Amino acid sequence: MPDFSKSESAFMQRAVQLARNGQFSAHPNPMVGCVLVNNDAIVGEGWHEIAGEPHAEVNALQEAGKKADGATAYVTLEPCAHHGKTPPCTEALIAAGIKDVVFARQDPNPKVDGKGRQALENAGISVRSGLMQAEVDELLAGFLSRVKRGRPRVCLKIACSLDGSIAMADGQSQWITGEDARADVQRLRANSGAVMTGIGTVLADDPSLTVRDGTLNPHNRQPLRVILDSGLRMPLAAKLLALPGETLIFCRDDRKAQALTDAGAEILKLANAAAFVDLSAVLKELGRRQINDLLVEAGPTVAGQLLEHGLVDEFVIYQAPHIMGSETMRMFETPNWTNLADRQTLQITDVTQMGNDTRITARPAD
Amino acid sequence: MPDFSKSESAFMQRAVQLARNGQFSAHPNPMVGCVLVNNDAIVGEGWHEIAGEPHAEVNALQEAGKKADGATAYVTLEPCAHHGKTPPCTEALIAAGIKDVVFARQDPNPKVDGKGRQALENAGISVRSGLMQAEVDELLAGFLSRVKRGRPRVCLKIACSLDGSIAMADGQSQWITGEDARADVQRLRANSGAVMTGIGTVLADDPSLTVRDGTLNPHNRQPLRVILDSGLRMPLAAKLLALPGETLIFCRDDRKAQALTDAGAEILKLANAAAFVDLSAVLKELGRRQINDLLVEAGPTVAGQLLEHGLVDEFVIYQAPHIMGSETMRMFETPNWTNLADRQTLQITDVTQMGNDTRITARPAD
Repeated sequence: MPDFSKSESAFMQRAVQLARNGQFSAHPNPMVGCVLVNNDAIVGEGWHEIAGEPHAEVNALQEAGKKADGATAYVTLEPCAHHGKTPPCTEALIAAGIKDVVFARQDPNPKVDGKGRQALENAGISVRSGLMQAEVDELLAGFLSRVKRGRPRVCLKIACSLDGSIAMADGQSQWITGEDARADVQRLRANSGAVMTGIGTVLADDPSLTVRDGTLNPHNRQPLRVILDSGLRMPLAAKLLALPGETLIFCRDDRKAQALTDAGAEILKLANAAAFVDLSAVLKELGRRQINDLLVEAGPTVAGQLLEHGLVDEFVIYQAPHIMGSETMRMFETPNWTNLADRQTLQITDVTQMGNDTRITARPAD
Repeated sequence: MPDFSKSESAFMQRAVQLARNGQFSAHPNPMVGCVLVNNDAIVGEGWHEIAGEPHAEVNALQEAGKKADGATAYVTLEPCAHHGKTPPCTEALIAAGIKDVVFARQDPNPKVDGKGRQALENAGISVRSGLMQAEVDELLAGFLSRVKRGRPRVCLKIACSLDGSIAMADGQSQWITGEDARADVQRLRANSGAVMTGIGTVLADDPSLTVRDGTLNPHNRQPLRVILDSGLRMPLAAKLLALPGETLIFCRDDRKAQALTDAGAEILKLANAAAFVDLSAVLKELGRRQINDLLVEAGPTVAGQLLEHGLVDEFVIYQAPHIMGSETMRMFETPNWTNLADRQTLQITDVTQMGNDTRITARPAD
């Protein structure tokens, strides 16, 4: 990795900060930020807000105008060199007279993947990369998962008591966690291209799965609602069928599909031998549909299946200061884990107090 | 409450700090600290180390010698005025020429309870009280519980996974929490007059329940081991029967008592109609035996019984960063809690990282 000065780190830090502006709107595109610096002064800043509209570089060039001539561009992701919904950023950077480009991370998208760097270098621009790549990898975890693994990054959210209960055995579960935790879940939804649950949760709680907080949803787009519903038990009166946004139902038996299609849902049959919908196939399909980040808000069956199959990338656990006891539903149903060695070790990455509740963010340790 | 100056608060703070020196040895007596101040200078310090030996005041007077004449005494607890194992502290304070006494808390022990203050005032000493009483009440919680409620303060310790499991369903549970958490449990035991568990834990884990860390046990005294064992299923080969210290077994059917008595245990039969040993009666008996602090290290049955009966004063939960799933033993068996409203709300008083584990200290919120 080339050497970078402290001021270069500060410029890239600013570019990362700008990129974050797109967190609720840029997907399926990656969040990208760009800072143009001429004679040690920032002359232009830009970020990518929404797919189909100008990229970060173009927005920054527009702000800089003629001051872009001879400037250095700090971009969080390798500039694109292909014609997508918008023209290549490399062409715009070259045309504006940019002299140096520093980017944090090479774009693994096969349409770019080094071609951006090549186009810039062919035009005589000096290109360096790797500055703050770890931060950008964190920021783009969902995008990188989709591009590299062909499936979204899976974030599993669970609200539970201190003794690991999510509801009473009969399903009573209202208000286990408080207002602050519930507001935080709105943020998780807004960050995600899709929100998934199982039919059990639909039947028990009739959830909306929407982003209701307008400040988290400036373009009024709802995450795709994904329901795992083997036998299509989804009631036509389910609240989520009537709400803005799209609903995609994965089933194994589609005999009841017509009424649900008429109610506005899309039904996809996944044929497989197991008793449950094949979760790997679901994730692959969601990747194909350009979902970067999938938030799962599900009961113990779906959560347990994801856990047993090692498909959870991040756990977000809202722990309420209650003991609910034994006559309850647990966080995970894991019928195949009968040995202590089967357990999943976690690496806790953050612990934050949210009102009376504690939010624990963790990822698999291995 | 009288007004106290900042320096008086500092002196009492020091007395509280001194009192803490007795945390592993003073029980069944309360921890007490004393600071003697003459002309704004500390001239003597003392604390109560072990029952039957001199009290804090006497130790401080001994250090001060003639400088006690005209001094002010800052004591965490009202000085005693009765002949117990040692002579009354009030007499010693009067004889030494102490002019003022400030104590944090009146001693609720009926043998004292205002009589100490009276004796001092009768001798012309000015007495003020209430400075830092909340801190001292916290420090003496176990002692106060025994004197006021006739039963020890109950601290329930549980080691569990993030999803509330304490062992696999078949009992596998080794090393759920790490070294730091286990060392901390030694401290909890050393703080306690007795450590209690159920026969299920004895049969599954063959625990020692002893303080093995010598720095926590300067006088080489072990907490009383208390076992709840309705039908006296305790094996004669159980490790704890052979270890230093005493073992007290509560049962409901004492037909097998003789062999266990021969093995060195004391057997106490509590006749009651319920299926389990009557926990209130157990706590009353332990109070009668001058146990201030009872540490419970038990499985889900005993923990659940204590919880359902509202008998837990403090929860110390060591949470390991693991998910163990559903085929496990839970923290609490609470067969009678079938409604969400039955749950116990907690007030979390401390969260501390212990190696990879998190220690959560909490008390009932209501």
